[in-house]
Amino acid sequence: MNPEFPHDDKIPEAVIRRLPKYYRYLQEMSRRNESRISSSKMSRDMGLNASQIRRDLNCFGGFGQQGYGYSVSKLLEEVSKILGIDRRYGVVIVGAGNIGQALIRYSKFIEQGFDIKGVFDIDQKKVGSLMDSFVVQHVDTLDTFAHKTNVDIGIICVPRIAAQQTADMLVMAGVEGVWNFAPIDVQARKGVSVENVHLNDSLYVLCYRMTEGDRLPPL
Amino acid sequence: MNPEFPHDDKIPEAVIRRLPKYYRYLQEMSRRNESRISSSKMSRDMGLNASQIRRDLNCFGGFGQQGYGYSVSKLLEEVSKILGIDRRYGVVIVGAGNIGQALIRYSKFIEQGFDIKGVFDIDQKKVGSLMDSFVVQHVDTLDTFAHKTNVDIGIICVPRIAAQQTADMLVMAGVEGVWNFAPIDVQARKGVSVENVHLNDSLYVLCYRMTEGDRLPPL
Repeated sequence: MNPEFPHDDKIPEAVIRRLPKYYRYLQEMSRRNESRISSSKMSRDMGLNASQIRRDLNCFGGFGQQGYGYSVSKLLEEVSKILGIDRRYGVVIVGAGNIGQALIRYSKFIEQGFDIKGVFDIDQKKVGSLMDSFVVQHVDTLDTFAHKTNVDIGIICVPRIAAQQTADMLVMAGVEGVWNFAPIDVQARKGVSVENVHLNDSLYVLCYRMTEGDRLPPL
Repeated sequence: MNPEFPHDDKIPEAVIRRLPKYYRYLQEMSRRNESRISSSKMSRDMGLNASQIRRDLNCFGGFGQQGYGYSVSKLLEEVSKILGIDRRYGVVIVGAGNIGQALIRYSKFIEQGFDIKGVFDIDQKKVGSLMDSFVVQHVDTLDTFAHKTNVDIGIICVPRIAAQQTADMLVMAGVEGVWNFAPIDVQARKGVSVENVHLNDSLYVLCYRMTEGDRLPPL
């Protein structure tokens, strides 16, 4: 595999979005002690076209040998490396409300290489209180905190109205990535990556499918 | 617009996935009191290709007039209708843990046409306790409850190991849609729609982008 990812700029968004799906699938295969996997089995299990799977993986150099399939552990390792989750990330959470709280307690999240370094809020009633094992700190101290701690990612769990300002604050504090749960797309300067999570989107897609079902002619 | 969506079976997954994005964008335009919108402005604001926007909307019959753009309110109404969120849904939450709790308190969620009817858990310590305004009920009572209440959607907030069993239980109880937050894909019989939410996927994509940035040559 080429460590310099020479084709990076050509990798389509859809392929990137499928990578976590490969990662999850390979984790599951690894849990089941599968050592090798063919693209045709992956295709059946994941509901993706086998040639698409080969094309996707070829974007990153290709890891299979014709007729031998892929080594699960090697492919899992490579996909982790491609995703950049073969390292640990320092994380701060801004907004000690319900979503922030759920994320802190979402154990899976912490297990997988993401270390929560601090939790921040603007509400004086929350500042100083304990949220799990974290003392909630005032956002005004975020900048100082982030500059003396290793913080890579800021998670935004504040209301819509405060979301962009929080993003700006996180960027000033030096984070390289923003994971935003406020129901509005936030922006950051070039060089800082942003993922806006819209929980409701998948609920709407669910409603679409339910409605679509109703629209089909009866059997 | 054709009320029977004759092209439904041909609508690509990617278009369906973009619909909630259109919906959110149009809501925002509506909040800003914009009455008309051109596909070129939508294109700039949403970061999508203008011809793609026209193609997407044409899948559902097309709502614009060449040179006049789209009526924001009409398009918003149509997109709601297409998504099937122009009605109310009865919802039960199974799993009164952190994610379940966060969802209950996620006010936006309730505002937008989804009525939480009941919260269920298997843990006797939780059963009978109050979670917000809901008394947590035992899952064993779910079937009876769902058959005398109008429940359309079941939300799974239980651990991975119990997820498929919970999905089966919800299907037996007559739900038409399953919104699953357990970190494993659950399945349901034909006729029941499922959306598996993988919160970490977008975190991984964020890590990918952050790593991709590191891989670019320095300026």
